Amino acid sequence: MPAEHTVKAFTEDLDKIERSLLEMGGLVEAQIARAVTAVAQRDSESAARIIEQDSEIDRYEQDVQEQVERLFALRQPVAQDLRMTISAIQIAGYLERAGDLAASMARRSIVLCETREVPGLYALPKLGDASHTMLKDALDAYRDRNIDQAKSIRHRDRELDDMYVALCRELLTHMLEDPHRITPGVHLLFVAKNLERIADHATNIAELVDYVTTGTRASEDRPRGRGFLMEGAPSPDDPT
Amino acid sequence: MPAEHTVKAFTEDLDKIERSLLEMGGLVEAQIARAVTAVAQRDSESAARIIEQDSEIDRYEQDVQEQVERLFALRQPVAQDLRMTISAIQIAGYLERAGDLAASMARRSIVLCETREVPGLYALPKLGDASHTMLKDALDAYRDRNIDQAKSIRHRDRELDDMYVALCRELLTHMLEDPHRITPGVHLLFVAKNLERIADHATNIAELVDYVTTGTRASEDRPRGRGFLMEGAPSPDDPT
Repeated sequence: MPAEHTVKAFTEDLDKIERSLLEMGGLVEAQIARAVTAVAQRDSESAARIIEQDSEIDRYEQDVQEQVERLFALRQPVAQDLRMTISAIQIAGYLERAGDLAASMARRSIVLCETREVPGLYALPKLGDASHTMLKDALDAYRDRNIDQAKSIRHRDRELDDMYVALCRELLTHMLEDPHRITPGVHLLFVAKNLERIADHATNIAELVDYVTTGTRASEDRPRGRGFLMEGAPSPDDPT
Repeated sequence: MPAEHTVKAFTEDLDKIERSLLEMGGLVEAQIARAVTAVAQRDSESAARIIEQDSEIDRYEQDVQEQVERLFALRQPVAQDLRMTISAIQIAGYLERAGDLAASMARRSIVLCETREVPGLYALPKLGDASHTMLKDALDAYRDRNIDQAKSIRHRDRELDDMYVALCRELLTHMLEDPHRITPGVHLLFVAKNLERIADHATNIAELVDYVTTGTRASEDRPRGRGFLMEGAPSPDDPT
């Protein structure tokens, strides 16, 4: 039964790729959560470990790429299998980038230890939580091929953008009040931006659920938050 | 001669994908150059056109993805053809993201029109030029399968990181001197970050030249610039 044997080997290969992606995703999720804590608690030892572990995520990406290349060469997938194989490279790329963003937050948290504290940033761990959970849910939706859950993630991306804008305004107000907060404020603005970008990658992954399942690519006119454009942003002339 | 006919059709398909990628790249290059000018000259009309044109770049990405999917399904590429086909999805992704970064700069340039000018930012157009040229050269290296040129781009990425750090320090000094420059300064920091990211995408594309040609993926321990970590950054207590 060579045909059946081939089908079985093929399914095993696909499953193995998917397992690698989910393991990689779990590692990236943990890195993000740890990086947000390192920023909030000014924990430079934990930050150093996060930076070190980023290379493991890179190795996962390379491993997925090699598995995909082998599967293309040996098994020539079609239809949904083909779409799953193509999307695996893309998901590995998004996860690798999300891992980079976690490492970048960790690097900034080390510099933040040397700067004045910015008081009362309750919104930062909240944004971190939202972004981390979105990535987790996007990977769950991908694993379960759950189109409804994937769709809901696109809408959450907009809410997250609003949280991001509110946090940026808060940071800007602190920076205007006290020049000692300008340098830490800038780092925290970039940390917030990283979290917003991680949510974008989660959304990219969620959009691939539709593609893998139905073959249609999400149109690019994704609901867009206002970004951090600060129309009517706090100004030094405002009464404080 | 069905075999020869198939080979010819295959080569034509691959050539068409490559043409689409290079056209897409040309459009992205133009968007980046225009966005830097829009920021430097506070030209909100040009910025609006850049934002509008971003959807054309998205359509190119979708078109490349569809061509790749068709080629996989119909022609089952192997060896170098397989690698070229896989890398086409990745390059389209990097270019789409570089286009997004150009549109993001354009959006910030519109907000900048409403803020106080930050004087003497000679370094910004210089960074813009360097980043734009790197992307152009990466695409040329890809088109010509020129491994040496691709290698030189990795080293230029480091130089560009240094330019980026210098510009960030300059901006920070302006922000510390005059609180009216904090809001425009933050926007310009993000514009600088976008240009640094575009150069990263150029480096990603350059790394794929090696992969397509020889089958080896660049190791991830890319020479890393210091980033914008601002050790010893200007402080409000420094004499100015």
